[in-house]
Formats: sequence, C-alpha cells, structure tokens
Amino acid sequence: MTARKIGVTELVLRDAHQSLLATRMAMEDMVAACEDIDQAGYWSVECWGGATFDSCIRFLNEDPWKRLRTFRELMPNSRLQMLLRGQNLLGYRHYEDMVVEKFVEKSAENGMDVFRVFDALNDPRNMAHAMAAVKKVGKHAQGTICYTISPVHTVEGYIKLAGQLIDMGAESIALKDMAALLQPQPAYDIVRGIKETYGDIQINVHCHSTTGVTLVSLMKAIEAGADVVDAAISSMSLGPGHNPTESLVAMLEGTEYTTDLDMDRLIKIRDHFATVRPKYKEFESATLVDTDIFSSQIPGGMLSNMESQLRAQGAGDRIREVMEEVPRVKADAGHPPLVTPSSQIVGTQAVFNVLMGRYKVMTGEFADLMLGYYGECLGERNPEVVELAQKQAKKDIITARPADYLKPEWDELVKQASALEGFDGSEEDVLTNAMFPGVAPAFFKTRDEGPKSVAKTPKQMESEKQASGAKQQGIAGPIKYKVTLAGREHHVAVEPV
Amino acid sequence: MTARKIGVTELVLRDAHQSLLATRMAMEDMVAACEDIDQAGYWSVECWGGATFDSCIRFLNEDPWKRLRTFRELMPNSRLQMLLRGQNLLGYRHYEDMVVEKFVEKSAENGMDVFRVFDALNDPRNMAHAMAAVKKVGKHAQGTICYTISPVHTVEGYIKLAGQLIDMGAESIALKDMAALLQPQPAYDIVRGIKETYGDIQINVHCHSTTGVTLVSLMKAIEAGADVVDAAISSMSLGPGHNPTESLVAMLEGTEYTTDLDMDRLIKIRDHFATVRPKYKEFESATLVDTDIFSSQIPGGMLSNMESQLRAQGAGDRIREVMEEVPRVKADAGHPPLVTPSSQIVGTQAVFNVLMGRYKVMTGEFADLMLGYYGECLGERNPEVVELAQKQAKKDIITARPADYLKPEWDELVKQASALEGFDGSEEDVLTNAMFPGVAPAFFKTRDEGPKSVAKTPKQMESEKQASGAKQQGIAGPIKYKVTLAGREHHVAVEPV
Repeated sequence: MTARKIGVTELVLRDAHQSLLATRMAMEDMVAACEDIDQAGYWSVECWGGATFDSCIRFLNEDPWKRLRTFRELMPNSRLQMLLRGQNLLGYRHYEDMVVEKFVEKSAENGMDVFRVFDALNDPRNMAHAMAAVKKVGKHAQGTICYTISPVHTVEGYIKLAGQLIDMGAESIALKDMAALLQPQPAYDIVRGIKETYGDIQINVHCHSTTGVTLVSLMKAIEAGADVVDAAISSMSLGPGHNPTESLVAMLEGTEYTTDLDMDRLIKIRDHFATVRPKYKEFESATLVDTDIFSSQIPGGMLSNMESQLRAQGAGDRIREVMEEVPRVKADAGHPPLVTPSSQIVGTQAVFNVLMGRYKVMTGEFADLMLGYYGECLGERNPEVVELAQKQAKKDIITARPADYLKPEWDELVKQASALEGFDGSEEDVLTNAMFPGVAPAFFKTRDEGPKSVAKTPKQMESEKQASGAKQQGIAGPIKYKVTLAGREHHVAVEPV
Repeated sequence: MTARKIGVTELVLRDAHQSLLATRMAMEDMVAACEDIDQAGYWSVECWGGATFDSCIRFLNEDPWKRLRTFRELMPNSRLQMLLRGQNLLGYRHYEDMVVEKFVEKSAENGMDVFRVFDALNDPRNMAHAMAAVKKVGKHAQGTICYTISPVHTVEGYIKLAGQLIDMGAESIALKDMAALLQPQPAYDIVRGIKETYGDIQINVHCHSTTGVTLVSLMKAIEAGADVVDAAISSMSLGPGHNPTESLVAMLEGTEYTTDLDMDRLIKIRDHFATVRPKYKEFESATLVDTDIFSSQIPGGMLSNMESQLRAQGAGDRIREVMEEVPRVKADAGHPPLVTPSSQIVGTQAVFNVLMGRYKVMTGEFADLMLGYYGECLGERNPEVVELAQKQAKKDIITARPADYLKPEWDELVKQASALEGFDGSEEDVLTNAMFPGVAPAFFKTRDEGPKSVAKTPKQMESEKQASGAKQQGIAGPIKYKVTLAGREHHVAVEPV
C-alpha cells in the first residue's frame, strides 16, 4: 500500500512569529533558512499577511513588498502563501473593489502564489471579490472557513459555507482555527462532510496549539481526507503558535499517510530558528497551554484587552461581570466568531455595558456591526439592540454587501500617497498607504535608512548575561570607576579583598 | 449511545514534577491541591516512586513514608499509585525476595493501592516477585511494558510480553513510554493486539510529551481500547513532562469516549500548580519539544550525561563519534531499552569505546549487563563482547533470574539500619536505608529538623528580580556613598566611565 501524501504548509515565516514573537522577526533572521525551506518539500510556505506587513513598516523600517520579492528570489521552487482578509485586504476597513483588484495584482506580480482569503464574520460576500481577483491573475484562490463554537455554528453550517466558497471558485478550502478550538471530532466531521458533499476539493487545515489538543485534530482531519495541514518548525512552535512540523512527520510514520518531508532539511531549519527565537524573548507570550477558551469562549488576547480597558477606568475588579456579559453581547450580534476585528468590537461593548448599563452607550463599531456594515453573521441579531443601534448611530440597516456602498477610491488613494514625503511613485506604495494610513507616512520618510532589527544581537545578550553573571558571582577582578570627591575627579580601581 | 468512560491517572504529584522540576516539589506545595485531586474523578493519583523517595531524603529532609501517609489521609477516595522498579524496588540494585516483600507490605500498609511494576530490560523475571507480593497484600498489581524502538522490538513482541505479565497475575497492563517514542500507529497496534489476544484486560498508557506527538498516540490507544491514560494538569505539563489533563478532556469531547472528569476541580488544581511551578524555575529543563530521539535513539538525559563525561576528559568535541557508537554498543548488549540504569551503562561504555578503543576498557556495570546480571534483553548479545566481558570482569555468565543468586539479607539490613543515629526502629527506616544507603544515614540524623523547601518564596524572587533589574538598566547616573576611611566619613559619588 502506498501511503497517501499529506501536504504541509510551513508557518515559521508568518503566523509562527506573529503568534509567538509579536510579529517582530526581521528579514535578516529568515534569509539563511530559506534555501532549506525551499527544498524541504512543503506544499506551501506562508510568509506574508496583515500583521507582518504592519510590523515591517511600523517596527522594522522594512518595505513589505521588498520582503515578498526577496522570498520569491530565495525560494524559487515554493508556493508562497499569504493570508488576505477579504475585502479588508490587510487593513481594518472595507476597500472598494478596484483597490482589492490592484492589491491582488501587485501581490501576484511581486511573487505571491496562494491567497488564503477569509472574513471574520464568515460572510462569503466579503470574500467574493478578492477570490475573483486572485483567479483573474491565475493564482490559487483558497476560500476560508473561520472555525468557532456557538449555539448557531454547526458542522452542517460549515459544510454549507464550504459549498458557497466552492461556488465562488475556490480552488481549495481552508478550515482556519485561530483560537485552537477545533476538537478532533468536529475536525473529522467537517472535513468528511465537505469531501462527501462536494467530492475531492482540496482541504487545508490550520490550527493553533493553545489548547494543546489540535495535533490530534489534524490527525482526525487527515483521516477524514484533509489534503494539506499547517505546522511550524519545532523551535518556533507550541503555546499560542502551532503544532511542530517534526511532530507531525513523526505522527504519520507507520500510518497510511506520509508527509514526505526531508528530515535533514527540517533539522537545519529547526536549528536555525532555535538560535533566532531567544533574540526576541522580550516579545514572547508566557502561555504554554490554556483550555479556558472552551468554556469562556473568550480568546486570550481579547481577555487581556478587556482587562486593560477596565483598569484604565479604575474597574479592574469587574472582569468577571464583563466575562459574563460577553456571551450576551455576542448572541445579540448574531454570534460572530471572535477574531479581529469582531473580538475587539464585542469586547469593548461588553465593557461599556458593565460600566454604564446595558447598551446605554454604544460604540460606533458595535452599532455598525449591528446594522450590517461588517456583513452578515450566521445567527440573527437581536432586533431590540438593532433598533437601539439605529437610534444611537443615526444610520440605516444595510443588507447588501458592505463594499457595494463604497465609491471608487483608487484615484483618491493615489493622490493621498503622492503627497507624502518619500513616496516612490509605485502602486505598491499607494496600497501600503491605503491599508496603513497611520503608519505608512512615517515609514516612507525613513525607508532609505534601511531595515532595523529589534532582536537582541548575540553581543547584546552576552553583555547582559555577563552583567547578570558578574552580579551573581560577585566582582571577580578590579573595576574602574570615576569617583568625584569634594568636587575633584579621581580614577579609582575597586576589587574585593 | 453512551460514551465509553476513559480513566485518567493524574501525574502531577510524582512524574510531572520529577520530569519538569527535578523532583524538587515540597509536600507543602501539594497539600492544598489534594482535596480537589481527590474529588476530580481520576482513576488513580500517582504520587510516589524512586526519584520522589530519593529527593525527599536527599534534598527536602522529609520522610517519604510520612509523605505517603499524608497523601492517604488527604485523598481518602483515591487510588494512590506508585512506580516500582521490580526487583530493584526504588534503588539501583537487585534486592533479595524477602526485602521486596517487606517493601510492598509496608507500602500497602502506609496507603498504596496501585503498584506499577516495571523492569528496565523488560525481563518478566525481574517483575515476578514484586507482582506476587502486591497480590499477596490484596493490592492492584500492574505489569509494565517499557516501550522502545529497535530492530528486535516489534508489536508482536510487546503483545507477547503482555501475555507473560498476565500469566504472572497482572491485574492490568501499563504501556510505559518514558522517552515519548510511542507513535500513534504502534500505540494503536499494541493496544489492539493485547485486547484481541487476551480479551478485556485493563490497559493503562503512559506517555511523556517530549516529541510533541504523544497526545495523538493516546487518542489512537483509546480508539484501540485502552482503558486508562496518564496526564498531568496543564500548569505542570508538556516539554519533558506529559500531556495536559484538560487537553485530554477536550480531545474526547464529542467522541464516543469521555473522561467524566470534573472541570471545575481541574481548574482549581491547575491554578494551584500555576502558582507553584515558578517557584522551582531554577530546576526547569528548557526543552519544549524535541524529535531528535526518533533518529538518534538517545534520550536527552543520556546525551547530556555523555557530553559531560566527554568534557571531563577534555574530549567535548567527540560527541558525534559517541553518538554513532551508542547504537553499536546497544546492539552488542542485545538492544536494551535505554532507561535508568541501562542508559547510563550503555552511554558510559560508548564514551569509553571512543576514548580508549572499542571495549579496551569495560565498566563493571557493562560487563554485568553482558553477563546477565541485570537480566535478559530481547535481542542476542554479541558473543565476542560477552567473552571479553568474562575475561575482564573475571565473572561467569548467569542465565537464571538475577535475584536467585542473592542470599537472604533482611537481618543484615536491620542490623545496618539499627546502627545509625536517628534510626526510629521501624521497618520503614530499614527499607529507606536499604534502598538509599548513601543518603539515608544523613537524613536520619537531621530528620527531626522537619521538611525543608528548596522553592523560592515570592519575597526571594522579588528581591532577585529587583537586583537583576537594576543591573540590566545599568547605573544611569552617579551613585552617592558614604565611605568611612581611616575613621573619617567621606561623601563620594561613583559613576561608570
């Protein structure tokens, strides 16, 4: 019997360092691993997305488009993959269709192959245009199901959504589990259901590892017919990140499945990032495993967000009440999956409800969510709260695709970018400024200074280590000081006796 | 359909802190969690074994028998479980049968319920007497298969070994995977094979999590019919430890299996140990996930052992050669599983072979291993090396059960203990000294001072943190001192140059 080959998407260049190191990894810490990554036999290499783009221009003074071109050069044999937030692109609002087309065109031109297109609310209308644009440039359009748990989310619902994505031309379906909520049985049932209903459409499964259970979910998904699964090289894995690539390889040994990955290459990649990760220690999250989300339904990042909002109001002791309010607000909104931006919108409204009375004050974003401006959720919105939203925001309910209400904006975006110091005249720069108008202008100005790393160099770490070592051991030899005594400077050597 | 109930053995009180915190956890850090552990619905609570016993008297000035009685009192509803190294008991040599009986009797008397009996070489003759002794006192005798990978270890061989253990009266079979080598497929095949061959004998599966793959192995073992699996509460899990209890619960939700554990209790247990673990940070291993063992066959602890032996000989650069020598030595010895003590014996001989020429010098222990004094391995020993061992050690080959060559020793052990200062006259003390003759005498002397904790109190941690914080920030400006020199006070400002 020949084992069925399971494709693997390596996440180390994007989601792994986004989840573990606050997206801070500099390009110089990735370059040396690219040849091995290119040769290891992955189905694809995820290397680009909203947070990496943002981090490039916000913290690293690096042009994200150039990063993409560098990856393209260094990994000529690999499918490069990105995560695209549908009509939001990599930003936080809906863009008019022509901007979406421009972005996809430019991404493809600069080297992107696989576009994983998703929407926080799972509203297919918010993914449709991006997917059509991907197909238009001849690249791989992957439609995405964001997995969550709620009274209205069912296996059947996810299977139906997969069908809508296939109808929209998805070349493959991604089951995306950003909160590590996907348990083995639903993983099996959803993948199996999609395969049985729609035939042999390619299914990719993406799980985080926060709850400690999702490598088992990948196993069950594979048994159910999944074709590609996501993993991160072990030295950049686990916690809020992903399951280790080498463990995945080991998991399938002896079964009727195989990854066919080159273990010698994986070891080199692992050893490379094992030296890189410690340099970003200050950005690391401490979470190793956390299953609270199964009962609270509240992702870790959302929880800490609400806690800091409460503290800022001097109400840090009311987090329990807010945690109990979240499911109510979520239900009122029609059970959106809690990911960016819906997690922030629901969380902030829950805080407001506790501090000021339920819906006495409504944020503009929450009103928009209630009135359809982010798209449709699976559940029904609470009509009383919708009415309140209309009154408070003085806006109408919309039912069509949100982007249909937008006017053409490309020319205006070109004009805005052109006015900026350091703008290089490219459409890439126009898109950068369109998506991150609060950050791009400063980046354009300093771009010529070249990329900056926020990693601690070995030298910096060594000197910190020595300093702390000296402290622990005490002073070993003479230390020289400049001592000012009675206004006069003396050079003094001090050593223990 | 009613879900099949899967029992869970909680490891936090023994193997979890042994694997993660060098067995240093003090009783005072466990007491507060015992009620919740007792009520959570575990099949058993592992709480005693060789390393915890050793650590009690070596580092914590605590009587391990008293620890056991305390557990018994605090957890009246639980099966207490221990790990027993067959004829070695908790020590490092074979004991004569009457000592084995005494130890089992006293352990049962002090509160032990389930005895997991194992032998490093999987030689049933080394387990037989301990198991018979357990049955004689009416307690649960669990026969153990140590899982390893080698050219002579097969699924069929493990199934056969299970049969031998059942014939010896095992009430259940433990599949013990101390190096996290048990992959999903063999986990399934071995459990399935045992159930199909011998009917419904209870099977317990124990896996470490080092390679990141073994929660999947537990899933497959459960699918194959395993009855009880081992886990550690999440705040004391992963890395060289075990899979998280809560993740196991989540894994089975929605499947045809259930743990029926009380999640509210688990959360309390988790929160308790989340505050305990940081106090032992200095004892923590850094390993998070490591799949090297699949190719090297060398457990992490054994590797670091060999490295330090090489460094002590000024040959730290020859570790590659030693790593290549290990499989050869292991094969010559008949493929023993590499666990204590076989891992040390094989590793040290591999170092000697590299430094001084192959088998030019043989350790006494390796000669004993080659001549049958530790029992039989599954593979054949290399006859040429056996001959060398006979010559160098001037000893005969033995083929019977090693303990058959021992003379009654109980009276002598009583005499030895009685001569010690602080001996309390109990048979428990005789056993303590019999198993740890190098440590017990000093412990008996200081026992009256009561248990000592090696944990860092929050206050200690805070002051260390402040000290290191100050150091890291460096001296920002001049610091003023009052210096008394030859009886006169000077006010001095010091700053770095």
